[in-house]
Amino acid sequence: IPLYILGFQRFNLCLPPKPAIKERQEGIPSPMAAMASLFIKTPTPSQPLPKTHRITFPTISRLSYSYKQKPIRVSCGLIEPDGGKVVELVVPESHRDVKRREAMSLPKIKLSRIDLEWVHVLSEGWASPLTGFMRESEFLQTLHFNSLRLGDGSVVNMSLPIVLDIDDSQKNRISGSASVALIDSSDNPVALLNNIEIYKHNKEERIARTWGTTAPGLPYVEEAITGAGDWLIGGDLEVIQPIKYHDGLDHYRLSPSELREEFSKRNADAVFAFQLRNPVHNGHALLMTDTRRRLLEMGYKNPVLLLHPLGGFTKADDVPLSWRMKQHQKVLEDGVLDPENTVVSIFPSPMHYAGPTEVQWHAKARINAGANFYIVGRDPAGMGHPVEKRDLYDADHGKKVLSMAPGLERLNILPFKVAAYDKTKQKMEFFDPSRPQDFLFISGTKMRTLAKNKESPPDGFMCPGGWEVLVQYYESLAANDSGRVPEPIPA
Amino acid sequence: IPLYILGFQRFNLCLPPKPAIKERQEGIPSPMAAMASLFIKTPTPSQPLPKTHRITFPTISRLSYSYKQKPIRVSCGLIEPDGGKVVELVVPESHRDVKRREAMSLPKIKLSRIDLEWVHVLSEGWASPLTGFMRESEFLQTLHFNSLRLGDGSVVNMSLPIVLDIDDSQKNRISGSASVALIDSSDNPVALLNNIEIYKHNKEERIARTWGTTAPGLPYVEEAITGAGDWLIGGDLEVIQPIKYHDGLDHYRLSPSELREEFSKRNADAVFAFQLRNPVHNGHALLMTDTRRRLLEMGYKNPVLLLHPLGGFTKADDVPLSWRMKQHQKVLEDGVLDPENTVVSIFPSPMHYAGPTEVQWHAKARINAGANFYIVGRDPAGMGHPVEKRDLYDADHGKKVLSMAPGLERLNILPFKVAAYDKTKQKMEFFDPSRPQDFLFISGTKMRTLAKNKESPPDGFMCPGGWEVLVQYYESLAANDSGRVPEPIPA
Repeated sequence: IPLYILGFQRFNLCLPPKPAIKERQEGIPSPMAAMASLFIKTPTPSQPLPKTHRITFPTISRLSYSYKQKPIRVSCGLIEPDGGKVVELVVPESHRDVKRREAMSLPKIKLSRIDLEWVHVLSEGWASPLTGFMRESEFLQTLHFNSLRLGDGSVVNMSLPIVLDIDDSQKNRISGSASVALIDSSDNPVALLNNIEIYKHNKEERIARTWGTTAPGLPYVEEAITGAGDWLIGGDLEVIQPIKYHDGLDHYRLSPSELREEFSKRNADAVFAFQLRNPVHNGHALLMTDTRRRLLEMGYKNPVLLLHPLGGFTKADDVPLSWRMKQHQKVLEDGVLDPENTVVSIFPSPMHYAGPTEVQWHAKARINAGANFYIVGRDPAGMGHPVEKRDLYDADHGKKVLSMAPGLERLNILPFKVAAYDKTKQKMEFFDPSRPQDFLFISGTKMRTLAKNKESPPDGFMCPGGWEVLVQYYESLAANDSGRVPEPIPA
Repeated sequence: IPLYILGFQRFNLCLPPKPAIKERQEGIPSPMAAMASLFIKTPTPSQPLPKTHRITFPTISRLSYSYKQKPIRVSCGLIEPDGGKVVELVVPESHRDVKRREAMSLPKIKLSRIDLEWVHVLSEGWASPLTGFMRESEFLQTLHFNSLRLGDGSVVNMSLPIVLDIDDSQKNRISGSASVALIDSSDNPVALLNNIEIYKHNKEERIARTWGTTAPGLPYVEEAITGAGDWLIGGDLEVIQPIKYHDGLDHYRLSPSELREEFSKRNADAVFAFQLRNPVHNGHALLMTDTRRRLLEMGYKNPVLLLHPLGGFTKADDVPLSWRMKQHQKVLEDGVLDPENTVVSIFPSPMHYAGPTEVQWHAKARINAGANFYIVGRDPAGMGHPVEKRDLYDADHGKKVLSMAPGLERLNILPFKVAAYDKTKQKMEFFDPSRPQDFLFISGTKMRTLAKNKESPPDGFMCPGGWEVLVQYYESLAANDSGRVPEPIPA
């Protein structure tokens, strides 16, 4: 049995949100006791296909004035977003000029690339119910409890600090202002941050509690924390216009509300998300098609796959987003995955490589996009220890922590077994420990060597079109003579 | 107003325990919103004095056979222990010989002093509902969420890993056994650990997530983790007889159940706990008497103080327990605190010096002993950074984290203002920021110098009898010429 399912699926059948919140605190199997019963099948749902109807979401929350609310077509059958609604922070078009002028009059903070990615994440509601960069109470709850308690006593998951740093001189320039403007690298105003709170940025403590190590060489730390300011600034965001990258991939960047709309259009009664930052091989594809098959067996009529590559900051030796998207496109074209029940979209978050802490964020954000099933593999969001010769995290901790995480009780966690190349069948299959001699594990190193040397992997490892893209990527690297050591496929 | 109170007091009026658990999840003010409303007064309780009556607690839980249950006199008015009952793990006298013989036949693990302190803590139910050293699912929840989810979906706080390490050779010796014997330094069997689970001890991750730093020089780490084995062994404890130290202080070591019995005898309708690991000066005394006065104002009829010095491992420059107990005794004899409504007892836990993470443990353990109010000061369980020239933790984080901690919603947190020597009144008073020139802050360094030189502090700083004990302590140090630099009084 390659797939196991923890927890119970619950539909929010357009009932008032309060009982739904209460429900999630009751009758949930104890993870303390339940590690033993991790392998419980989800009960067969007996609900009919969800109807779609119009619900209005407020476009911006927690502002002192009201914008006209934008009606969004969502399915009432999709999982409820954290906090009850998708928090969208982009101001309506009619207000943008006013906001731009307002921004020009405020103290300014220049955003790094990663800062901008977080503005993007926040603006679309991936981090709902957050309404902007974290204030200290949210930061502390994130570091200590990986969760936030809301006004009604309910708990949502929040494992990564989503914070904006400033240095002493920026802090002095802000002085008494209640708002600041956030500007991009070309000095264009991106957003306003209102009702700000400035508090100390203890980098060592943040790193230790987020990564479980303070060893030098953590990619996100080196990129975004080591050189950061000694203060953090929280507040409520008003984003002046949707964040775009103009890299030819913006059409892949669907917001949580747009994804919900898409799932509703397709009459999805289950949405299973697959987070990835690597090329898709046939082992992944096997897993995804097998998941759909099992969901159908359970009684779901139309499970839809959200194939959701991460689009923000990644470490230097990961395959860049543009190449990965080409590869994913080929996989769909080659018919490895069925476009009928697959939505490919880009998840705009930057990558922390924080293992069990980060996988919670990856799952939580997908709830907000409508996913009620989350596929989790070996060592999610993990990497090698930057200093010692071992993996940074225990390969099983990710799925264990995820299955016990506060605020994720509503999400069905789907751990999966390792797929490997079955020499007897000449294709990728779930590893069968009763006949290990028949399986070939194709490591990242092996893959890299093959692609660099323009050799082919065993037949059936990856669709030919997808493989061709990888070979081209390594050719382009060689042409640039960059000398980097890419790791295209996780071990 | 020197004292502020967060949250709402709830009595468990001998109602069935289930609704009480549900209650604690509802109607609790959101810490996210509530940091602004931190300073809300507890509503006046209108309940009559609680009646006492007989309830039986099972002496040992989760065992495969039933011991005769020991009836304990407890007040139904006291706060409910975490998980509904105080988990006591000492086997009844009639079974001890059998258990001792059983222990002799099992693989053995020798306990360090700190291990034994944890066995003591677990055996009396300070860590209820834990039934022994943590298994991996509890360890992971502690590290990531500072809390444990129980079978009924409720959450209890648990911020420090209570774990037992073993090395490779010990692990090999245990091999297939389901139980092990824990023995003391003289090879006497102390306890059985049953249904064991052995899992990896990632020391770096444990330290980083518990202390928020991996800097060398953390006292508990150096004493108990650096040299520890690479495996942890969890399981259910059966402790063969009550843990005693034969140091003349065992009569001060009341278990949670004994404390509950004592509070019931005294007809306490509120119990406020004061954790300390330092001599009591008149600033502390002021705070404690002021707390009682305010609880009376709120309508409580008989608030009782639990003056609860920590008795386990402390760092080398803390004043040793025996001297502190002498000093506390003098303070009571000198009438600074009223013995009528004060219970002095020793809290057997070792000290982590883990600041905001540890203060949760200090508070949670006192719930199990019947305390429903917890006094928290500046930088609780904090210390200087072992490497950098700063405090390890932000002085305000302890009370903030405590006020937001999952599983502590039922506890009333009492943050307090700093007391200092008021030169105009010649006594310790709460610091009044409108007239800072009138106040003298007597730092630890200043105190040490005075006591070493046998000089007297300003009149009214500490009762003369208590001061005399301190002077004697430093004399004894000088006599030993130990050369240590003690820090008797926190800054």
